[in-house]
Amino acid sequence: MIDFRTHPRHYRHWQLTFDGRIATLALDADEQGGINAGYELKLNSYDLGVDIELYDATQRLRFEHPEICCVIITSAKERVFCAGANIKMLGLADHSFKVNFCKFTNETRFAIEDASANSGQHYIAVINGSCTGGGYELALAAECILMADDGSTTISLPEVPLLGVLPGTGGLTRLVDKRKVRRDRADFFCTIEEGIRGKRALEWGLADELVPRSRLAEAAATRAGGYVRSSTRPSDAKGLELTSLERTMTGDRIDYSYVTAEIARDRSLATITVRGPEVNPFEAVPNPGVLNDSFWPLAFARELEDVILHLRFNEDAIGLWIFRTEGDPDLVEAYDHWMIERQDHWLVREITMYLKRVLKRLDVSARSLFALIEPGSCFTGILFELALASDRSYMLSGTRNGEELSSAMIRLTDMNFGPLPMSNGLTRLQSRFLGDPAHVEELRRHIGENLDTAAAAELGLAGFTPDDIDWDDEVRLAIESRAAFSPDALTGLEASLRFAGPETMETKIFARLSAWQNWIFQRPNAVGENGALKLYGTGKRPAFNPRRT
Amino acid sequence: MIDFRTHPRHYRHWQLTFDGRIATLALDADEQGGINAGYELKLNSYDLGVDIELYDATQRLRFEHPEICCVIITSAKERVFCAGANIKMLGLADHSFKVNFCKFTNETRFAIEDASANSGQHYIAVINGSCTGGGYELALAAECILMADDGSTTISLPEVPLLGVLPGTGGLTRLVDKRKVRRDRADFFCTIEEGIRGKRALEWGLADELVPRSRLAEAAATRAGGYVRSSTRPSDAKGLELTSLERTMTGDRIDYSYVTAEIARDRSLATITVRGPEVNPFEAVPNPGVLNDSFWPLAFARELEDVILHLRFNEDAIGLWIFRTEGDPDLVEAYDHWMIERQDHWLVREITMYLKRVLKRLDVSARSLFALIEPGSCFTGILFELALASDRSYMLSGTRNGEELSSAMIRLTDMNFGPLPMSNGLTRLQSRFLGDPAHVEELRRHIGENLDTAAAAELGLAGFTPDDIDWDDEVRLAIESRAAFSPDALTGLEASLRFAGPETMETKIFARLSAWQNWIFQRPNAVGENGALKLYGTGKRPAFNPRRT
Repeated sequence: MIDFRTHPRHYRHWQLTFDGRIATLALDADEQGGINAGYELKLNSYDLGVDIELYDATQRLRFEHPEICCVIITSAKERVFCAGANIKMLGLADHSFKVNFCKFTNETRFAIEDASANSGQHYIAVINGSCTGGGYELALAAECILMADDGSTTISLPEVPLLGVLPGTGGLTRLVDKRKVRRDRADFFCTIEEGIRGKRALEWGLADELVPRSRLAEAAATRAGGYVRSSTRPSDAKGLELTSLERTMTGDRIDYSYVTAEIARDRSLATITVRGPEVNPFEAVPNPGVLNDSFWPLAFARELEDVILHLRFNEDAIGLWIFRTEGDPDLVEAYDHWMIERQDHWLVREITMYLKRVLKRLDVSARSLFALIEPGSCFTGILFELALASDRSYMLSGTRNGEELSSAMIRLTDMNFGPLPMSNGLTRLQSRFLGDPAHVEELRRHIGENLDTAAAAELGLAGFTPDDIDWDDEVRLAIESRAAFSPDALTGLEASLRFAGPETMETKIFARLSAWQNWIFQRPNAVGENGALKLYGTGKRPAFNPRRT
Repeated sequence: MIDFRTHPRHYRHWQLTFDGRIATLALDADEQGGINAGYELKLNSYDLGVDIELYDATQRLRFEHPEICCVIITSAKERVFCAGANIKMLGLADHSFKVNFCKFTNETRFAIEDASANSGQHYIAVINGSCTGGGYELALAAECILMADDGSTTISLPEVPLLGVLPGTGGLTRLVDKRKVRRDRADFFCTIEEGIRGKRALEWGLADELVPRSRLAEAAATRAGGYVRSSTRPSDAKGLELTSLERTMTGDRIDYSYVTAEIARDRSLATITVRGPEVNPFEAVPNPGVLNDSFWPLAFARELEDVILHLRFNEDAIGLWIFRTEGDPDLVEAYDHWMIERQDHWLVREITMYLKRVLKRLDVSARSLFALIEPGSCFTGILFELALASDRSYMLSGTRNGEELSSAMIRLTDMNFGPLPMSNGLTRLQSRFLGDPAHVEELRRHIGENLDTAAAAELGLAGFTPDDIDWDDEVRLAIESRAAFSPDALTGLEASLRFAGPETMETKIFARLSAWQNWIFQRPNAVGENGALKLYGTGKRPAFNPRRT
């Protein structure tokens, strides 16, 4: 079972060091430290384990190190920066793992860009040796790429000529959309095994600065200094420690403090219940300076993220995730208010952006998402985003016969109108009402109202609204029919319907590049007996079926 | 061999009729008229042959019928509008054919939308019976959907529940992006076999008007009348007849009047040579009213389109298309000037938009595209778009030893700055210089200049610029290495690099939906022995591998 929880003291592959307001993340992959058996992490190549550490580091840098304004990503090895994803590992991995591995690495690259763009924590890549495939894609996620001008430093995206697959971590999109490299040059660059070095890399916009090896550290420090001077990060704040995430697994049930997931294998579904807070933050938390990671929004976000990643990687036959909530809507709303009122505080901002990123993980998860809005639930503000992120929601009309709980209500807060955008740059409400922006404005006037099922349906916020008599049958039928469909067709359907409206690098990478890569990962030319990915390293040449589509 | 040339008098599936300024295209599929053997076109289902006729009709309506302001698409059969793509046909088709079939049908749907949006020729879908899958996707391409309110008229996209694949002709994208149907409703609609009828279809935005069967014709006429009154199409112009396209096939060579394609099977490439005009239009063509289809821009566009479609469908192992031109740049430039000066004339506008559509076909062709710019060529204006559409261009520096032709030149015209946008809404120059819009403005100042290789390279217009000594080796190596790569990886690479910048419904459908569909078309859950597409109609239930990615 893959576990995403780690800590710098357990890192096997990254050295995280600090120098005043600058941190350095140096890759020094432990060849024997692969997360699975069967391959060695030579030449600073990476696997999921290496990327789990990288993600952990990016998270801790945001929360635990308010003082850090610049992160330098480099290599601790001689003459090699990073060889990208380990090919032997990819050759051994099954389709589902490969796709999820690419998805997770992509999410970390976007988290790096989120830090640079929104958190005043700027990433610089310092390429000090050969930089291949995913290695260069990691550099592309940085705001600025410095490159040693020496004999061993080249950059390349050799996936197409060498492996018969695509660069899988956004490299193609970032070349032409982020760095706006000319298309014909990008085509050339992506079709030569040997890569490009020095002046040409600079001239084509593949790097930002070319520096003699001896002056690399100095040049990086100069760049970093510039970011430090312009950064909005506080110099005197205390970081928030991310303590170890506790969870209990009992059979098919996972319990965290605010999140529980229960798997029903016979129905191919997991029910994820998020519990609301128990206290009012206005009473319990005098100011953001005393926050720790038991603060409800942060705590449930970490737990939700962990369960998403766990289910993605360890439970790939569970095709449907059902979201439920339990708790007091007033308290959820109070947390939203508390956060909105303090949104200029660095830590509140970090927590909000983290919630944004966790919710985005839902949008790109290849699972069907349903929300069940029932009596006793608290789909309010932040938690209502779970319903909005779902492919469908069911909201019970009225009360349940024989049950004392009052009928289900949803409630909007300011959190639904801006701080938690999707990958397409819109809020989930804007995406939902793409054809009627005025309606989103109209909804603002209902902020704070208790909306019962009829009102929610009238406002377009509830999907299906059966009453107690019909509920069980209608929900059961929806679940059963979902389980009967082709999982692949559902994945394509959901990815197509979830991202209406404007497109961004994120939607291009998750919904387009990923789709192409999925296709290619499945084709005999890559993974067949004589496919390029299969034969890599054997000395044999792949035999391609030349037919184009 | 599939032939895309047809004429209304050869139609087997469509009835094209005219009533004043309104045309009606009624589908009456000939069950025995499939383009391939092995299936019957029951229930107005379609195959490539049906869609070739539809495309031909849309083209002729634009050129031959300036008076037509509104086209009503409907069914000539009782109780069935259209059952979509024939499933048996899809089950029998190989991967490459399926993908290309979807691409061609998509291009026709976009041509319909182009007519509505830019040509004053508005399409109305009148759904008079069950309307399934591709049938509803065809309706979605219309500007307005009328639906009979009776027992037999339902609309559905049952691909996911029934076939384990996606609606392949843009249905998902048009649901949420064009009609802006709420995502959860779209999800529901796409997962029920039986479809939706009447009021719910209207309420959810799946149709624009619900009409009792008895008043359907009247309601269509009313809508059409509105379009007629607001249309910009001329009422008194004479149409241009599209005469039969002549071509000669000799071994691996195809000759048209201005286009020649030569296939070199040993190198997996086709060289497509476009010849410039022989006369000056300012002398030869007094005014647009006397044009016929031998007019050079129209003639070569038709020939280029035919060769693109021929190579896509009939030569799928030919992975590289090399573009060459021959002729007098002054005459090409004269045609561009002539067209730009008369761009308000309906027919000149039609020819320009047709050129736009043909060039777009190149952008979405799953083939590598190279342009060779050599002495004697005329990569000027319209024809320079061939080089800009290519993944790479090679421009010879200087002259060839022992050859009398003067050195290669390229020349920009106004045609490169607006009238021929790509699917992303940008010109090819804007896409090429995405990071430097000011440079595109700078290039305007070079319109009409003869740009030699050095100048073209300096301005970023030429890719690689070997001289006579290096040319043969450099070009040969590029061709050989291209032929050695995985065709699938190249397809994904090219699709990712060609569409930088903004996204539109077109880029979403061609570069995203298509990628998902490609993947799904390849998966055992669809096409394996127990896959849904394979088993459809046998009465057996598919057995799905439940694993998600």
